[in-house]
Amino acid sequence: MIKPQDIKSVAVIGTGFIGFGWAHLFCRAGLETRVYDTDTQALDAICRRLPKELAFFRDEGIINDDELEAALSRIKPCRDLAAACAGADYVQECVPEDLQVKQQTFRELDRFSSSQTILASSVSALSMTEIARYVRYAERCVVAHPTNPPHLIPLVEVAGGARTSQETIATTYTFLESIGQKPIICRKEIFGYVLNRLQFALEQEAFYLLREGVATCADIDRCITEGLGLRWALTGPFMVEELNAQNIEDDLRKYGPSIQELIASLGTWQGPDEEDITLASAGVADILAGKTREEVSTWRARCVLALRQVKERG
Amino acid sequence: MIKPQDIKSVAVIGTGFIGFGWAHLFCRAGLETRVYDTDTQALDAICRRLPKELAFFRDEGIINDDELEAALSRIKPCRDLAAACAGADYVQECVPEDLQVKQQTFRELDRFSSSQTILASSVSALSMTEIARYVRYAERCVVAHPTNPPHLIPLVEVAGGARTSQETIATTYTFLESIGQKPIICRKEIFGYVLNRLQFALEQEAFYLLREGVATCADIDRCITEGLGLRWALTGPFMVEELNAQNIEDDLRKYGPSIQELIASLGTWQGPDEEDITLASAGVADILAGKTREEVSTWRARCVLALRQVKERG
Repeated sequence: MIKPQDIKSVAVIGTGFIGFGWAHLFCRAGLETRVYDTDTQALDAICRRLPKELAFFRDEGIINDDELEAALSRIKPCRDLAAACAGADYVQECVPEDLQVKQQTFRELDRFSSSQTILASSVSALSMTEIARYVRYAERCVVAHPTNPPHLIPLVEVAGGARTSQETIATTYTFLESIGQKPIICRKEIFGYVLNRLQFALEQEAFYLLREGVATCADIDRCITEGLGLRWALTGPFMVEELNAQNIEDDLRKYGPSIQELIASLGTWQGPDEEDITLASAGVADILAGKTREEVSTWRARCVLALRQVKERG
Repeated sequence: MIKPQDIKSVAVIGTGFIGFGWAHLFCRAGLETRVYDTDTQALDAICRRLPKELAFFRDEGIINDDELEAALSRIKPCRDLAAACAGADYVQECVPEDLQVKQQTFRELDRFSSSQTILASSVSALSMTEIARYVRYAERCVVAHPTNPPHLIPLVEVAGGARTSQETIATTYTFLESIGQKPIICRKEIFGYVLNRLQFALEQEAFYLLREGVATCADIDRCITEGLGLRWALTGPFMVEELNAQNIEDDLRKYGPSIQELIASLGTWQGPDEEDITLASAGVADILAGKTREEVSTWRARCVLALRQVKERG
């Protein structure tokens, strides 16, 4: 198995939102970055978009002109999957979240790459045991689920399937850490891993409150951005409890009965139906208040980069 | 009823964590700030702590020396509830979260204050209809539930009970906004209001994942601080869905079946038992990694202030 420090050349398979983010990250980290997509138009699009988005990082003071040039020179568009895999030390799969598509892709990656190469999937919910079912060297197949967008948000979930080796998990973790990402390990195979489960536990209640007329989309979003999210950007739920009282034990003992009553009263939601889509779309239009989606997205990117610097300076 | 712009003098009743935060906020906002506690030691403690914590805001560049002096001069410790209420335009109750204690306190506030004075409760879960049950002028009783710590995190939930007037809700909202807080309105009486319901929907899943051995406390906290929380500090759950795909409609349609499956698979948790307290305490010790709770708290305060400036600069 390849060692983390020996990973010099990577391949990104699929160039949608997620593949784009990984390519942006890898080329800045000094890695030869092959990009491949079955759709050659998508491949052309990523090659046009990368210079623009790397220039944004330069304008925000994250990289300088030389680093921008060097990063761009490391991007190698490939019109052939075998060429993208040949000699790659690490492959990051970013094809659509569909079991058959992922299984077929992993079969091909297994065939076209060295048995020493790590095959990582950006899968966000499906099982690696299933994805790697038809792979010969399944010990090197691993989940590396990033957070959208991967080049801005550093959290990556690392998880194995039934046949994944512990060495692969450890190597992937160390490699991701070495390029500035913040990995966690998901110790059991579970649908949606950790991040999406936490996210949709909260969204279930958000949609419940919206449907019940308790709060508007704008007020629910503000409750997060000016309340819970300001704490959570710095301290997770366990540390928040620690700081809310004398310590977490004091907090859980003191508020235990309230927490019990609250949890028993939480709402349920089955997932989006037409009414949710209508309400949420109108709610987002209200939050945008005339701004475009792109303006908010750029503002968020700028703030995330600044926030990460604030956290690192301490 | 008092107008928002005419609120010049406020009383903070109860000087624990939350009362302290409100006092810090009010005296910086130019308001005469009476502070009262049945426990005179607690009253002495807040008067010793305020200068220190205001100096922290000066050191972080939020206020200057003159503003610090002026803020401190506005603090009026009161050893008598009637004196605290006499002439106060707005009263912020911060006594323990216990229905009988809150009811008794509101009865006294009702008696000692002008019928034009707003009586706001920092209550985090209980019903204002119940709290104001024995009050004569219940139309001016309102929930103003802050986020801990109130002087750092600006979100406040405003809600009425059955007898609260719309004018009181509107005045409270405008007043809180005028002192730099970010209020939302909770349109129906519901246990735990919006913030704590969203928070514990997520915590339920966090404790479930911890108990199932899927992830450690440190990894769950990191999933938030380096993942979901970085997005949520800037964009709430609805705006996150908008930015994750072409728009929120596209996102909900595309991932609808996955979201359904994920929500159906979420875990349950009854609230903290002894095993949770043991696991969470050990987990927090692990996250602290030798740092003290106070060091993390100070680091967080510094980062929150910087983050709020980043967001405002845009």
